[in-house]
Amino acid sequence: MSENGPADAWDRLRALPMGTLVELTTADGARWRGAVVPPHEMSGDRVLQLKLPTGYNVGVRVGPTDQVTIVEAAPLNGNGGSTPSKTRPSSATGPWIGLLTTGGTIASRVDYRTGGVRPVREESEILGFYPDLERDGPVRVVPVFDRLSEEIGPPDWEEMARRTVDTFSKGASGVVVAHGTDTLAYTSAALSFLLEDLPGPVVLVGAQRSPDRPSSDGFTNLTAAVTLARHPELAEVVVVMHDGLSDDRFAIHRGTRVRKMHSSRRDAFRSRNGPPIGWIEGSTVHLVHPFRPRSTGSPRYTGPMGTGATILWFHPGLEPSRAEAFVAGARGVVIAGTGLGHVALSHLGWIKSAVARGTTVVMTTQCLEGVADPFVYATGRELARAGVLYAGDMLPETAYVKLLWALGRSDDPHAVAELMKTPKAGETEGRHEAEDHP
Amino acid sequence: MSENGPADAWDRLRALPMGTLVELTTADGARWRGAVVPPHEMSGDRVLQLKLPTGYNVGVRVGPTDQVTIVEAAPLNGNGGSTPSKTRPSSATGPWIGLLTTGGTIASRVDYRTGGVRPVREESEILGFYPDLERDGPVRVVPVFDRLSEEIGPPDWEEMARRTVDTFSKGASGVVVAHGTDTLAYTSAALSFLLEDLPGPVVLVGAQRSPDRPSSDGFTNLTAAVTLARHPELAEVVVVMHDGLSDDRFAIHRGTRVRKMHSSRRDAFRSRNGPPIGWIEGSTVHLVHPFRPRSTGSPRYTGPMGTGATILWFHPGLEPSRAEAFVAGARGVVIAGTGLGHVALSHLGWIKSAVARGTTVVMTTQCLEGVADPFVYATGRELARAGVLYAGDMLPETAYVKLLWALGRSDDPHAVAELMKTPKAGETEGRHEAEDHP
Repeated sequence: MSENGPADAWDRLRALPMGTLVELTTADGARWRGAVVPPHEMSGDRVLQLKLPTGYNVGVRVGPTDQVTIVEAAPLNGNGGSTPSKTRPSSATGPWIGLLTTGGTIASRVDYRTGGVRPVREESEILGFYPDLERDGPVRVVPVFDRLSEEIGPPDWEEMARRTVDTFSKGASGVVVAHGTDTLAYTSAALSFLLEDLPGPVVLVGAQRSPDRPSSDGFTNLTAAVTLARHPELAEVVVVMHDGLSDDRFAIHRGTRVRKMHSSRRDAFRSRNGPPIGWIEGSTVHLVHPFRPRSTGSPRYTGPMGTGATILWFHPGLEPSRAEAFVAGARGVVIAGTGLGHVALSHLGWIKSAVARGTTVVMTTQCLEGVADPFVYATGRELARAGVLYAGDMLPETAYVKLLWALGRSDDPHAVAELMKTPKAGETEGRHEAEDHP
Repeated sequence: MSENGPADAWDRLRALPMGTLVELTTADGARWRGAVVPPHEMSGDRVLQLKLPTGYNVGVRVGPTDQVTIVEAAPLNGNGGSTPSKTRPSSATGPWIGLLTTGGTIASRVDYRTGGVRPVREESEILGFYPDLERDGPVRVVPVFDRLSEEIGPPDWEEMARRTVDTFSKGASGVVVAHGTDTLAYTSAALSFLLEDLPGPVVLVGAQRSPDRPSSDGFTNLTAAVTLARHPELAEVVVVMHDGLSDDRFAIHRGTRVRKMHSSRRDAFRSRNGPPIGWIEGSTVHLVHPFRPRSTGSPRYTGPMGTGATILWFHPGLEPSRAEAFVAGARGVVIAGTGLGHVALSHLGWIKSAVARGTTVVMTTQCLEGVADPFVYATGRELARAGVLYAGDMLPETAYVKLLWALGRSDDPHAVAELMKTPKAGETEGRHEAEDHP
């Protein structure tokens, strides 16, 4: 339907429900087609925010004589941005996905006063950015908290895990966790250890650009995550993010084997020590590597996390006394050693003392790929003799998260060591051949 | 010339000079062709060590009736393994390369008593492993020390830098530093800052497998490094290691932008935040990106390094008091923050105190690629306001090494900050576009 009327184009546009699909032809001949999304508070007068078919948003300055065509009314089931999900018609039926929001760029926008990015506070604002999320079935938003991910810590992991169990218990067929990208991989590892007997996928997703920016990856990532969350077989904790720089391919990373490898690229997340479990292209999920299937039991929370552990990055010139001060009072420490898992032997003293005090000392490699292996060089053998646990091909971050989890389950260092050595959530595949990666 | 005699094959082989090219046909029909290299002390009786044309070594058990053919006598200019370079004929003329040996796998061998790897102690043994190194001109060995690289620290960097200057001063046209791989990239960054006005290339090289193992990459890497050290134009500190898993392509990494990214792969070294400067294929050097050319001045040592700095890996759950204890008394700290360079704001307190005490606090990203940028999120702006220096796209390790170097040049935190902000050795290319990498 076309409604080119004589009124000021801006006045007509302002009156449209969020989600209305419009075509706008400006006086200089540019033509924009997209869904109306909420304006920025600071975008100024006469700037229309449109979500383009690519998922990108654009702000267009509207002149009085611009031509406006309404292509399609806002979807009936809401989510056009002005309607919080709790007031949506309950007619949406079929299996539903729980969307846990925790803050982060995927739920942030540029603050035009400061030029920085601030979290979006309103649930309606979040859904306003992401029309079409319910294309294949209902999505229920579960606000957990609103935090930039560098502020998220172990108690928050516990909260997310409990809310995930709760959401499954209420009938969700899958759960999506929207999360800041900074510590997304720490959280995905934590949920991998904290959740057992999952009845469906737990998909963590983030965005490297806020959803109101033209280059935002939030829409495409979230759509892919919801698609995967509807998968009938997969039932483990995974991360879904862009794979490469195109908009149509997303990698499915195992929660315990993924790392943010670039501070800003959309394809920053990479599986380490093995390929992703699979990929999502459009609405098709390709699972090409083994995955954990749906459990017939009830989902279980295996927390709490322990406390008092840390990660020590060994480096040339690190004074043993400084390392010792860092680890003082800790129940556990993950060392990111060099190469196959080495430190200068001048550190043997404090390491032995720490082990003798009951501190669990875990060795990983700061290379971030390949194994930590004590049996190749004399240094490794010395450290293993001193009681250092070598973590194989576990990422330092994953080893740290697993250590916290193990410390939460036992006060006995021997039991903690056994938990560390026992594979639990795909976090290690044991010893790799040196060059078995493509 | 063929000399199949009736004597026991083993007795004949034992009498040959190191470096003799032989062909051995064993009783079971296997045929081996290669240069004789020194035996292991523990390889046992009747085991011949051969360096194959691929550069790989193999140990072959020799039966009394095996057929031995001498294909070519040991090269006249020695280096067959039994002749230390200092006693070689001085007839070798033309530009020479200084090969500084510092220990590490490239100068190690498997200790068959323990199954581990031990350093090779004898210069002759080192050269014995690497015949043909002088194919294109003389190489003079300069033993610096004999250390596994996890034991190498800032004073050793100073020693290597001084010995490099010294070697150039004695007339070398290029310098190769053979070094363990664990901390090779820290050393390459250190030499990049410690050396100025270089008259030729300084090429660091290592091996992921010891030279007596069939899969050793020592020979091919070292040959490529010597090839590059003869380059007539390049005059900066670089790392040369396998590029990919073939034996004929080597990457030339800038010394300040390289990282060991796998604990055991031969192509573990990767340039970060940009491509390698170039590649070496066979004896051809392809320099495809800008490089620092030969200086007409005299090479200068810009040390010493300062002391009292460290790297702190921020992670969820890191207690501010633990971080504060770690940094206590430090003159500088490089934080490997999350994403664009963030920490939980609960750490602002100790960071502000440290800055107030004159500690230089530098922010990098634990992603290891992309920039640390304070201007995108409120957290970054808070940290920058607190006096944290954002290091752009500098690697955490490079920022740490540069910080030590800057602390060695000034006691004034303002001067240290200026040094940190001023590009010196290609360690940063400033702000990258978010997705400008292939």
